[in-house]
Amino acid sequence: MRSFIAIDLGGSNTRLGLVAGGELLVHRMLDTRTEQGPGPWLERVAAACKELKAEAAVRGISVAGMGLASPGVLDHRRGVVLSSPNLRAWEGFPLRRKLEDAVGLACVMDNDANLYALGEYRFGAGRGERDMALFTLGTGVGGGVILAGRLLHGGLGLGGELGHINVEPGGRICGCGARGCLEAYASATALRGMLCEEINAGVHTRLGFDDGVKKMDRAARQGDPLALELFQRAGWALGRAINNLVAVTGVGLVVIGGGVARGWDLMAESCHRELAACLHLVPLEKLRLVPSALQEDAPLLGAAELARRRCEQETRNPPPDGGEDLE
Amino acid sequence: MRSFIAIDLGGSNTRLGLVAGGELLVHRMLDTRTEQGPGPWLERVAAACKELKAEAAVRGISVAGMGLASPGVLDHRRGVVLSSPNLRAWEGFPLRRKLEDAVGLACVMDNDANLYALGEYRFGAGRGERDMALFTLGTGVGGGVILAGRLLHGGLGLGGELGHINVEPGGRICGCGARGCLEAYASATALRGMLCEEINAGVHTRLGFDDGVKKMDRAARQGDPLALELFQRAGWALGRAINNLVAVTGVGLVVIGGGVARGWDLMAESCHRELAACLHLVPLEKLRLVPSALQEDAPLLGAAELARRRCEQETRNPPPDGGEDLE
Repeated sequence: MRSFIAIDLGGSNTRLGLVAGGELLVHRMLDTRTEQGPGPWLERVAAACKELKAEAAVRGISVAGMGLASPGVLDHRRGVVLSSPNLRAWEGFPLRRKLEDAVGLACVMDNDANLYALGEYRFGAGRGERDMALFTLGTGVGGGVILAGRLLHGGLGLGGELGHINVEPGGRICGCGARGCLEAYASATALRGMLCEEINAGVHTRLGFDDGVKKMDRAARQGDPLALELFQRAGWALGRAINNLVAVTGVGLVVIGGGVARGWDLMAESCHRELAACLHLVPLEKLRLVPSALQEDAPLLGAAELARRRCEQETRNPPPDGGEDLE
Repeated sequence: MRSFIAIDLGGSNTRLGLVAGGELLVHRMLDTRTEQGPGPWLERVAAACKELKAEAAVRGISVAGMGLASPGVLDHRRGVVLSSPNLRAWEGFPLRRKLEDAVGLACVMDNDANLYALGEYRFGAGRGERDMALFTLGTGVGGGVILAGRLLHGGLGLGGELGHINVEPGGRICGCGARGCLEAYASATALRGMLCEEINAGVHTRLGFDDGVKKMDRAARQGDPLALELFQRAGWALGRAINNLVAVTGVGLVVIGGGVARGWDLMAESCHRELAACLHLVPLEKLRLVPSALQEDAPLLGAAELARRRCEQETRNPPPDGGEDLE
């Protein structure tokens, strides 16, 4: 049996895992310690990879490659982070090459939400489907789109940046600097921001300024009208974004993941209502919206899947230019 | 040399051509006569195809297949129009199979805007590029998206329906029934509708109720403020749509075609201004917006290109299920 090392680089934590046959056999968690920059991070990651390789040897399986999930806009062919608000020190750092040198394994790399989508597509809610799109409603809103097995990647170094679909022109300000992006309504950050604004405006709620999405979720279920309204607002924004996603791609299966999506049942009705208002191209019942099946394991499984695909491709024909046809 | 017959089925006219090496060698035009339905149309198209085959024989070239461009939402694998407002009688008709039987050639089929995009990608403004998207601003607004050489097609039987990206929630009513689609601002129909509304509201213009896009274009160039404003409004809507297109696909080259786009220089500034306001994911100068190079020949060249690809694929390996990997 062949296994792969998967790494999910995040702004707070880095998760690592040993994956074989779509299963996460072992995993490790490290503090990313962004303030130290990528050098020290690389050393700790390399040490953890060494442990995972030893673990694989104990189990009698080989490690055939590595897959890395990173936030931000990437040049996934060169293996470099172009821009990532939470990992400024990583921008321009030759991440893939350095990892390959340090660990001694070939590495592939993609955006974390894209790899979340790929994991979910192969082993979760998208299993056996031809097409699938994913929204990750977390601190920010990410996404990935897979058509006929291939992740969408345009020439601009991004693809599936579904959090920046505009849902309300001139609306709430987004972390990217624009107004009215989905992320400004359906991320955990946005929900907290809207909560504070409503409290400041004197709206009655049992929640306080410091309450996060988990508490909002609980309050909504216990009948707090403001908490419920904020989830409905996120659902409404998601409906508008899905309409635009469908117009561009024609995708028929949409998976909703990330921490905010634990409240999917609170958002589903307003999401469907908004979709019914704006999506007239196809009968609405053809479009399936489902919650994520794998949650935080999905990016690791996706990273390993990407590494597996690369291996298969290299077995069939050597790469001409760094993996043009990989996705 | 191998050639292909290309057919562009439209609500008013049907164009046919003989294409070899990306060149339109001969072409014919027929009235579609939608009121008669697809049966009589098929007979006349078959007769025209016979002429094109004879023309190919005279030139000493073989005809290897057919490509058909059709408006509407299609099942492009089964070769059936699912829904098309201007071709109601064609809906559900086994178009591809009937054409193959009548002409005696294998036929591939896709949406006309997708094939416009494919033609432009291979032989026009997208030549030599990896990725490209196209907007056709005509009676309606269509589109096509090509990433790494492949046309986007989702499982819903559509893809690249860029005219139905929502640009103004709650805005002008669109032909599809929704409010605020790009098509409700940037199609010839929308420009004429907005013109009538403004005249009714008492806005001064040299234009009249019956004037079309050509006259509006001329009036705008001669300083008519309303005509200019309407093109700018179309440009503004296009900017918003491009922002969403880029978020979903990351495409870096956008081609603007169709009759309204002859006034592209009148729209470009407002389009860029709106893009600057809402697109913060990548530096704006990385995104290229260019006018169509091929205009009405593009769908025919694209249909022939699709037929050529099918031929090549069948030479490599016989189709498992009607062309799963064609695009």
